[in-house]
Amino acid sequence: MKQAFKTIGLIGRPGSELAAQTVARLYQFLKSNGFESVLDSDTASSVVNLEAKHVDKQSLGAVVDLVIVVGGDGSLLGAARAVCDHGTPLLGINRGRLGFLTDISPAEIEQEVSAVLNGEYECESRFLLEMDVVRDGEVISRGTALNDVVLHPGKFIRMIQFELYVDDTFVYSQRSDGIIISTPTGSTAYALSGGGPLMHPKLDAIELVPINPHTLSSRPMIISGQSSLRLIVGSENTAFPHITCDGQAHVVTQPGDEVRVSKKANQLTLVHPANHDFYETCRRKLGWGSHIPTDSFASDDE
Amino acid sequence: MKQAFKTIGLIGRPGSELAAQTVARLYQFLKSNGFESVLDSDTASSVVNLEAKHVDKQSLGAVVDLVIVVGGDGSLLGAARAVCDHGTPLLGINRGRLGFLTDISPAEIEQEVSAVLNGEYECESRFLLEMDVVRDGEVISRGTALNDVVLHPGKFIRMIQFELYVDDTFVYSQRSDGIIISTPTGSTAYALSGGGPLMHPKLDAIELVPINPHTLSSRPMIISGQSSLRLIVGSENTAFPHITCDGQAHVVTQPGDEVRVSKKANQLTLVHPANHDFYETCRRKLGWGSHIPTDSFASDDE
Amino acid sequence: MKQAFKTIGLIGRPGSELAAQTVARLYQFLKSNGFESVLDSDTASSVVNLEAKHVDKQSLGAVVDLVIVVGGDGSLLGAARAVCDHGTPLLGINRGRLGFLTDISPAEIEQEVSAVLNGEYECESRFLLEMDVVRDGEVISRGTALNDVVLHPGKFIRMIQFELYVDDTFVYSQRSDGIIISTPTGSTAYALSGGGPLMHPKLDAIELVPINPHTLSSRPMIISGQSSLRLIVGSENTAFPHITCDGQAHVVTQPGDEVRVSKKANQLTLVHPANHDFYETCRRKLGWGSHIPTDSFASDDE
Amino acid sequence: MKQAFKTIGLIGRPGSELAAQTVARLYQFLKSNGFESVLDSDTASSVVNLEAKHVDKQSLGAVVDLVIVVGGDGSLLGAARAVCDHGTPLLGINRGRLGFLTDISPAEIEQEVSAVLNGEYECESRFLLEMDVVRDGEVISRGTALNDVVLHPGKFIRMIQFELYVDDTFVYSQRSDGIIISTPTGSTAYALSGGGPLMHPKLDAIELVPINPHTLSSRPMIISGQSSLRLIVGSENTAFPHITCDGQAHVVTQPGDEVRVSKKANQLTLVHPANHDFYETCRRKLGWGSHIPTDSFASDDE
Repeated sequence: MKQAFKTIGLIGRPGSELAAQTVARLYQFLKSNGFESVLDSDTASSVVNLEAKHVDKQSLGAVVDLVIVVGGDGSLLGAARAVCDHGTPLLGINRGRLGFLTDISPAEIEQEVSAVLNGEYECESRFLLEMDVVRDGEVISRGTALNDVVLHPGKFIRMIQFELYVDDTFVYSQRSDGIIISTPTGSTAYALSGGGPLMHPKLDAIELVPINPHTLSSRPMIISGQSSLRLIVGSENTAFPHITCDGQAHVVTQPGDEVRVSKKANQLTLVHPANHDFYETCRRKLGWGSHIPTDSFASDDE
Repeated sequence: MKQAFKTIGLIGRPGSELAAQTVARLYQFLKSNGFESVLDSDTASSVVNLEAKHVDKQSLGAVVDLVIVVGGDGSLLGAARAVCDHGTPLLGINRGRLGFLTDISPAEIEQEVSAVLNGEYECESRFLLEMDVVRDGEVISRGTALNDVVLHPGKFIRMIQFELYVDDTFVYSQRSDGIIISTPTGSTAYALSGGGPLMHPKLDAIELVPINPHTLSSRPMIISGQSSLRLIVGSENTAFPHITCDGQAHVVTQPGDEVRVSKKANQLTLVHPANHDFYETCRRKLGWGSHIPTDSFASDDE
Repeated sequence: MKQAFKTIGLIGRPGSELAAQTVARLYQFLKSNGFESVLDSDTASSVVNLEAKHVDKQSLGAVVDLVIVVGGDGSLLGAARAVCDHGTPLLGINRGRLGFLTDISPAEIEQEVSAVLNGEYECESRFLLEMDVVRDGEVISRGTALNDVVLHPGKFIRMIQFELYVDDTFVYSQRSDGIIISTPTGSTAYALSGGGPLMHPKLDAIELVPINPHTLSSRPMIISGQSSLRLIVGSENTAFPHITCDGQAHVVTQPGDEVRVSKKANQLTLVHPANHDFYETCRRKLGWGSHIPTDSFASDDE
Repeated sequence: MKQAFKTIGLIGRPGSELAAQTVARLYQFLKSNGFESVLDSDTASSVVNLEAKHVDKQSLGAVVDLVIVVGGDGSLLGAARAVCDHGTPLLGINRGRLGFLTDISPAEIEQEVSAVLNGEYECESRFLLEMDVVRDGEVISRGTALNDVVLHPGKFIRMIQFELYVDDTFVYSQRSDGIIISTPTGSTAYALSGGGPLMHPKLDAIELVPINPHTLSSRPMIISGQSSLRLIVGSENTAFPHITCDGQAHVVTQPGDEVRVSKKANQLTLVHPANHDFYETCRRKLGWGSHIPTDSFASDDE
């Protein structure tokens, strides 16, 4: 039997007036249906005339049964990193174009959220990556990513050099604009722009996509989700390489630093409306071919 | 001042009932506007109840001022190879989805053809490739291509090996599923599927795209349209390599055969409605981004 | 504790004189070290002056403890399909360039084979795909592949159209030269030529690589190794699509045929010399960067 | 008859001790053979114990017949931008791995430079791009590039949005990490890392390579070298886009700025040793296949 959600957390995209309006609308809808809502503090301060309970984003997962994020895939990434240690499930409502992660549109809020609160939903586990930067044997920085950990030169147009180890085995040394280490969730985001393949969200695998590599033999590579990766920052870069998790919070590394990446123990629970279909989202967002009608080859057109 | 077209040739896509209907409609329209029409013989035999002058397709270009092709890009390729030695201009009407070459839709026939016959049109030169297969010093086969000359194994799944020379300089030897030698016109067709770049139609250049090459260092290459190419068929293939021009008429080669490809002296004159725009066709057919409305970044969606 | 191999099967690359010589040399070496050898019948008939026990290839796995294949990766693929139902481990000796699967060179035969027979080896499981072609509800053809199952037009230059379902969910319909369905083992072979990523051999995943797709939105995709795939052959192809397993044995399909592909229950056990390193093979065969010496950036050379 | 070089300019890679030594060696060699040498001022200050005439780099081209650059391709790019307005030919000597532009190795200096001074050389014209940034109708910045002009976000991981016009025709609007506008010379450098095709150095064409584009339909495009390009910087970027010529001197743009790029009137004359072969350099530096020996297919190895 499915979990009954009683207390609902609400997070809106920071700085978005539209998201704030939607959060207010959701708040009233939940209240009139007998649910208690708690906002994250930043969202609470941006929604005017709303006297609502609020806590900071990092604590929100501890006090609610479900967190609803209003924004785009980027907002959901931030919420995911904040709640994943609490194991609280996340539901995404998109303010603009539907995303891969935020698959309820504002027009359908009452209907779809009602359905979810009535138990008509699907849960999906998504794993995150955790990242440590180690210098002289000490961890100097940590990060968490639902999409990707990226090593890059910080600034364009610079080249960096690094070595890659997987499960303590040397793989290659590379000169490039960097490397994208992506989860299946991230495989439809920056990794796809960089030429990587799509991975099904349920796959237990990590994707490595070199960014503008200097050798033609470099190719994307897929390894087990159980793998431990290490990037050793080279000493001959034209810039200090940076490490970025989900496009946020750049850590600046030094030659010899070791960047360790592996799967985080706690997974994210993503809530979808019933009948969610990953491939349907691919067809809609990526322009993949739908069923071909029987008369569509009437022309010899290319 | 623009050329006045008086006698019009009509070619319909072979075997297409829809194309035959459109040819009949065009014939009546031209007749009622005082133009003389000549059909190619195959088209004439497929249009019922039409007593029209007709000649074979290879001769059509000699007796008319303009040839109108009804079909898809494939039909236009065939017509282009037939008329290019006569220098007769070609206009394409598409029966299905608009193509890169056939850019008038059936709904607009009377309006657009009227405009063209009134001198409202643009002419564009497109070059073709000519191909000779040379065995023991003798030319054993010839071909012409508006899109591409392709060396391939004939059958899947086979691998071929060949050497490439450009202007008598050795370039590389390659093991692959073959190579696409494409004009700018062909760069939006098979060469694009094979991973090649787009070339602007006016560019004086030839594109070489390896098909599923066995080495990661193989990449598409662009050379001058003035170049002479030679492919030397290797002796260690798992199939007899074939040569195909515009996807038609496969010539089977033997080890040691030399395939010579260079620009054909006679160019094709393609007639477009006024205000034809290559890039607009790219945006429509390839899904390139149109102008971005100012509020389209309301979401932080990927 | 490792398995002790007592009876050894020997398979040579069909038609290769060099392979036959190596098989004879191996036979003598094994005999003089007290091991019993059994040849496959085809190999036995090609090795002159050798009175050896022999059985047909399909039965060889049942009567020996280890099969040694002399040839290239292609020979090993054939042997793998023959022995996998018996669960017999395979060891590959390459006659030419070292392969991904055949990682002992002829110069090292006695030394490396001795080591393996003394228990100094590593075993690796590789999964295979099984393929059924279903017409009108009946299985009309079956196949097994260690590398890949490929749907293709049979002949160049033809285009096929098909629909893909994964775990009974519609994914896309596609017009292309076909699709490569590859195991991790096959990801370094044809799938790599087609633009797919590398997959680590231990990954439980299947790679789908479209061949020269007609739309720019098509990309390689990675799905779970537990998935069931179905390709539905379209009705509007310019050729009868073929299905090929590991580049062998083409099955011709008809419109409406269903091609089912999933992981085979029996896995292959591949025997490697101790200290086998997949990434080292990648660096050697694909030209990946080795460790960078500290002074190698003395120049600002691209 | 070829031009006789009498006065020789010498430029060394800034900050390179090895380059300084080679410049000193070249200086002595030229002096003992009766040639006059002039150093650029930066180089003169880095070569100890050498009393040589020197002028600043921008003036060097005006006072010498030939400039010899000691360094890598990067050093030659800088020298090319400095001398191209004077029309002075350039010869490149590489201190590290041979480059595409610097094709004399230190070991051969005396022999190869002697040959060139004796008239045994080939001249090749390479075109450059000139770039203007226009704000509110005024040119606020200018640049010159032998390899490429790149629009990029300045910092990773940011996304920019811009519109592209070619010859005043709208092409597309794009969201990406930027775009590389490359000459044929640059097609073996950053454009190649970004997935672009190679262009023969003599081709009169410009290559456009999107960097990590957000849509799958984006592809490299080749247009005429006579084209005028305009990039209009969008208003919805997450960073101020930068413009960089040959990887140097970043100009920061603002929304609405127009970046104009077209071929520079003055071309660079590149001096090569006789028998220079572009394709040989490709085979050596890119790992392209050389002639295949007749027995190389002895194995059925992939």
